[in-house]
Amino acid sequence: MRAIVKTKPGTGFELIDVPKPEIGPHDALIRVKAVGICGTDVHIYQWDAWSRARIRPPVVGGHEFVGVVEALGRDVRHIEPGVRVSGEGHITCGHCRFCRTGRAHICQNVRIIGIDRDGCFADYLSMPADNLWPVPDEIADRHAAIFDPLGNAMHSVTAADISGRSVLIIGAGAIGLFSTAIARAAGASKVLVSEPNAMKREIAARVGADVVFDPAAGDIGAALLEATEGLGSEVVMEMSGSAAGLKSAFGFVQNGGDVVLLGLPADEVAVNWARDIIFKGITIHAVSGRRMYDTWYRCQRFLLGGRVDIDPVITHTIRLEDFEKGFEALLTGKAAKVVMTL
Amino acid sequence: MRAIVKTKPGTGFELIDVPKPEIGPHDALIRVKAVGICGTDVHIYQWDAWSRARIRPPVVGGHEFVGVVEALGRDVRHIEPGVRVSGEGHITCGHCRFCRTGRAHICQNVRIIGIDRDGCFADYLSMPADNLWPVPDEIADRHAAIFDPLGNAMHSVTAADISGRSVLIIGAGAIGLFSTAIARAAGASKVLVSEPNAMKREIAARVGADVVFDPAAGDIGAALLEATEGLGSEVVMEMSGSAAGLKSAFGFVQNGGDVVLLGLPADEVAVNWARDIIFKGITIHAVSGRRMYDTWYRCQRFLLGGRVDIDPVITHTIRLEDFEKGFEALLTGKAAKVVMTL
Amino acid sequence: MRAIVKTKPGTGFELIDVPKPEIGPHDALIRVKAVGICGTDVHIYQWDAWSRARIRPPVVGGHEFVGVVEALGRDVRHIEPGVRVSGEGHITCGHCRFCRTGRAHICQNVRIIGIDRDGCFADYLSMPADNLWPVPDEIADRHAAIFDPLGNAMHSVTAADISGRSVLIIGAGAIGLFSTAIARAAGASKVLVSEPNAMKREIAARVGADVVFDPAAGDIGAALLEATEGLGSEVVMEMSGSAAGLKSAFGFVQNGGDVVLLGLPADEVAVNWARDIIFKGITIHAVSGRRMYDTWYRCQRFLLGGRVDIDPVITHTIRLEDFEKGFEALLTGKAAKVVMTL
Amino acid sequence: MRAIVKTKPGTGFELIDVPKPEIGPHDALIRVKAVGICGTDVHIYQWDAWSRARIRPPVVGGHEFVGVVEALGRDVRHIEPGVRVSGEGHITCGHCRFCRTGRAHICQNVRIIGIDRDGCFADYLSMPADNLWPVPDEIADRHAAIFDPLGNAMHSVTAADISGRSVLIIGAGAIGLFSTAIARAAGASKVLVSEPNAMKREIAARVGADVVFDPAAGDIGAALLEATEGLGSEVVMEMSGSAAGLKSAFGFVQNGGDVVLLGLPADEVAVNWARDIIFKGITIHAVSGRRMYDTWYRCQRFLLGGRVDIDPVITHTIRLEDFEKGFEALLTGKAAKVVMTL
Repeated sequence: MRAIVKTKPGTGFELIDVPKPEIGPHDALIRVKAVGICGTDVHIYQWDAWSRARIRPPVVGGHEFVGVVEALGRDVRHIEPGVRVSGEGHITCGHCRFCRTGRAHICQNVRIIGIDRDGCFADYLSMPADNLWPVPDEIADRHAAIFDPLGNAMHSVTAADISGRSVLIIGAGAIGLFSTAIARAAGASKVLVSEPNAMKREIAARVGADVVFDPAAGDIGAALLEATEGLGSEVVMEMSGSAAGLKSAFGFVQNGGDVVLLGLPADEVAVNWARDIIFKGITIHAVSGRRMYDTWYRCQRFLLGGRVDIDPVITHTIRLEDFEKGFEALLTGKAAKVVMTL
Repeated sequence: MRAIVKTKPGTGFELIDVPKPEIGPHDALIRVKAVGICGTDVHIYQWDAWSRARIRPPVVGGHEFVGVVEALGRDVRHIEPGVRVSGEGHITCGHCRFCRTGRAHICQNVRIIGIDRDGCFADYLSMPADNLWPVPDEIADRHAAIFDPLGNAMHSVTAADISGRSVLIIGAGAIGLFSTAIARAAGASKVLVSEPNAMKREIAARVGADVVFDPAAGDIGAALLEATEGLGSEVVMEMSGSAAGLKSAFGFVQNGGDVVLLGLPADEVAVNWARDIIFKGITIHAVSGRRMYDTWYRCQRFLLGGRVDIDPVITHTIRLEDFEKGFEALLTGKAAKVVMTL
Repeated sequence: MRAIVKTKPGTGFELIDVPKPEIGPHDALIRVKAVGICGTDVHIYQWDAWSRARIRPPVVGGHEFVGVVEALGRDVRHIEPGVRVSGEGHITCGHCRFCRTGRAHICQNVRIIGIDRDGCFADYLSMPADNLWPVPDEIADRHAAIFDPLGNAMHSVTAADISGRSVLIIGAGAIGLFSTAIARAAGASKVLVSEPNAMKREIAARVGADVVFDPAAGDIGAALLEATEGLGSEVVMEMSGSAAGLKSAFGFVQNGGDVVLLGLPADEVAVNWARDIIFKGITIHAVSGRRMYDTWYRCQRFLLGGRVDIDPVITHTIRLEDFEKGFEALLTGKAAKVVMTL
Repeated sequence: MRAIVKTKPGTGFELIDVPKPEIGPHDALIRVKAVGICGTDVHIYQWDAWSRARIRPPVVGGHEFVGVVEALGRDVRHIEPGVRVSGEGHITCGHCRFCRTGRAHICQNVRIIGIDRDGCFADYLSMPADNLWPVPDEIADRHAAIFDPLGNAMHSVTAADISGRSVLIIGAGAIGLFSTAIARAAGASKVLVSEPNAMKREIAARVGADVVFDPAAGDIGAALLEATEGLGSEVVMEMSGSAAGLKSAFGFVQNGGDVVLLGLPADEVAVNWARDIIFKGITIHAVSGRRMYDTWYRCQRFLLGGRVDIDPVITHTIRLEDFEKGFEALLTGKAAKVVMTL
């Protein structure tokens, strides 16, 4: 079968032929229909410091997918071949402290498809059947393929009390844009987005931002205060992963407010803890992964109920064999979300 | 000045001339511009058992209002004459356990305008300046006049986690309808409303209900299960005050879900605690009054942000002197919310 | 092997010889060392209405146990033979809405050992290895055997905010007494217990109650108010399962407080919802089962840290073959908790 | 009257004679009986950067006190002369967003006694009567005098879920030690304290610490992991205000755990947000002031119920005129809490 593989240390991926994967007694074999390219895939493509430390080539890339169950291991009872599925790419151990207390998203022994084991950028994918998410017919493949990052956005938005409060989203990459749509649908009274890329700002406005700011055009502080009754935003979601974004998150949050952290700064970042955090009496929520499977249910209901329109975020839909174009568009800031079909 | 007064025990109100009220050192004198008729006013009109036990005539009715500050007591510093205001009608003591811990909505010594002291169905109203709510210009008088019941709805909707979950509202009186609009804006993935009055069901659909049920046409259980993936609603808000509504709330809520109680049953109601509450592992939130003043801020932001359209709920706008028509419309189920202008 | 079996419909259990149970690929075979008798076992012994509707004889009784792993199914990886274990008797499906969202304690398809399948009142027990709880050496068998009801108590106590607040426990059966000890250890500023049985009141005082009341000696309302600064208890835990206990829970709770419901009334119970629940603005938490496995961790830490002394609750330790004496003691109110050793 | 006054910019305080303060219509005049010296008073004594920016001499120092109401302003109704009182030193505006939503502890316009206006290190104190806290007879003067820092500790401990979880307190100054006692009483299953000062470690052990660490003796990481089942502490409370303490807080917290921040670092501190905060999925609670007046009630109940023993923390009880000795003891690390009597 075809697969996009990190064949060896170094930049890039290769589209090559590899054997169809085998399945164990609790696994499912999935014929992949569509996949999403995540920022993590881009990091692996670039072979950055994190990738060099974590990835052991060769490995098939990709963790966002939709497909059809083609075969099942002998011990799988709760799902049938032919069912269309997306899936949770975090394969958790089930036995650690966190798995045993309903917090599998921070499992100590997690192995992630496309990172620690073969992923979904291929004609077929093998993974535990317990991780599959059957998809209702009403949900299109291009949406089902990106349930994973939509879930990160849902996890972020529901980390704080959002209903009837203002929300500032710093960084409108794919998850920032999904969070914009979800924050609007989830009850934010005002959605503010700060993003230097003009195309992404425009998408933000289309999916639900009330106000967009360009932080590259100068300090947005005064404009933000004007938009928030002089008090700053009640919730701030840091999704840029930049040091500047992180510092500004604490500057822009209202006293007593909430900061949600999803973006991953590459290095240590210094902040003024006394002035910007402690005296303000804020709460900071660090978000990693997706709550299993509460975020999946909430995302699905929002899609089924027509509460969110995420199509503007999918700027590119290409064929798997054109994957280089997808990575190119993401690396040059021309794409928000790239979906590849098979 | 003119005032609608419960002059003596018995049915009805009278529009009579009374002296303009005086103000103490911490009070404000407000020239009333518009008022809303609450279900409580209707109970007082009818002189029901609760009214007979609580009301000591003569008393001017009404507690929902918007007006303009005309004069201020000598110790008032934080507000100016000429400001347009609505206000919290619960005059709280400030010194009891509940007032001292941010829960003034359950103050032990509360006195309510229009119930325990003269209310706003009059040309002028005197009340403590601390209870006033300055209203931004963008908010129309008819909306500012009904901040009070809108706040009850906000309190109810925010009592449970709503974002991305299904909500069933039982009883579409004014607060049920406001709750419909707010639940939609606050992030419910599906808003279901059960109401026997066809006009109110139609309003519910206009302000945000995805599905409306007529409980008078037969058991809605099967239809509800179909609308909720076979599991019942994740949140149920009981706003009918009827024994049947209360019993059905516990029957219709999903295991592990939330029931919000606002409607006030006149008598004791028996329920199957083991089967419908304890084995289901639900949480029940009893709602009384409005959280001061968090619910006011959230309502205002939703209005300013265009998140809710409450105009369909205001079925009647009449002059103060036509108050009998307003009570008549409410008593016969022809009105949802009646606003009276002065 | 020996087993205490409900062999046929009707009162009582029989100690008979049955075949040693088999194990499937994910199961463990446990050599039982000690078991606890639960109130549910007493209901089954009595063959009450609930038992008649639920139990399908023959079935081995019992669900509270400690034992040693003797053999494991072929797919079990995370545990070894020889490990001492207690276990969660609720065998959950893993695939329903509730299991998938960290709420397995309300699994739709739960099967309970000793109720829906053979239990632990026997020399050997077979159950899924995922449900086992390895027990540290520092914890005695008699304590490990009753992790299950201790978990119900922990679930109840942690359902509401306890730290620095007063707690009234209505009904001092075994779970009420465990809740007394845990409420004290978990930070209640004052623990009040209402119980008609003098022996149980005395145990309550020994394990942590600050004040005990005898509801059979007359209305405890005045004494309760005196003990709670005139306001009622901030948290009330209803653990008697009686109609009178349930009604009094709502009467005795402070405005704005929390009521935790664990006791199961046999019939419908009527309460004054408006006066005792809605106007009071309380929150009601219905508790079913144990949160998996958060309550297990918390119980274990309290035991290891010496935070609770539950020995006074274990009034009887007998041999398995003397089970009739244990049931007799429980049925006549002479026992709080009975542990049987093998 | 006598007063300890910061008479002019520079180090130290002076005990001088000043006029007895006047009272306004809402104020109370309190004859002071005992006061506590806070770390903030020490900063003002030292005239550090924060003091130089904030304090406008001359000002009477001190904000922790107990005394007796001697006179009341003409509009005070709810308290009587002769009542023994402590008081909340944060004089809040009552009208800002935060005051109006039950979060007066982060009032935008707060003025603090002993900092922004004359304090309690004097024979008499004038402050708003609404800020007074009547003290039951059972509570000794030396305890009532330090309700303020005890409230900070209560605010910190109740910021996270503590019951049945491990808690590491970094920094055993007075608030760290009070937090140790309160964390134990509030239900922590294991209380761990890290503090370089041997005397304070010894006090920590006396008031409730299960384990104490000396961070000056080498990295405590391995010992901490051993004490926490290899996972780190579920809750970490940073109370040292040092950069090292802050960094270690994030290193020592368990994945999915909570960090409570009270200590105020003087400068910016850099941390590894990705590794130590975001991937760990933790929640950070910044604590400023005391929740009015919920923390006061909880502290009082713990004192009345004998749940905490704070006497070991009060290392010095001196006369007001010996204040130099108190500051000296604090500056040299020989004191934990100093109480001065009048």
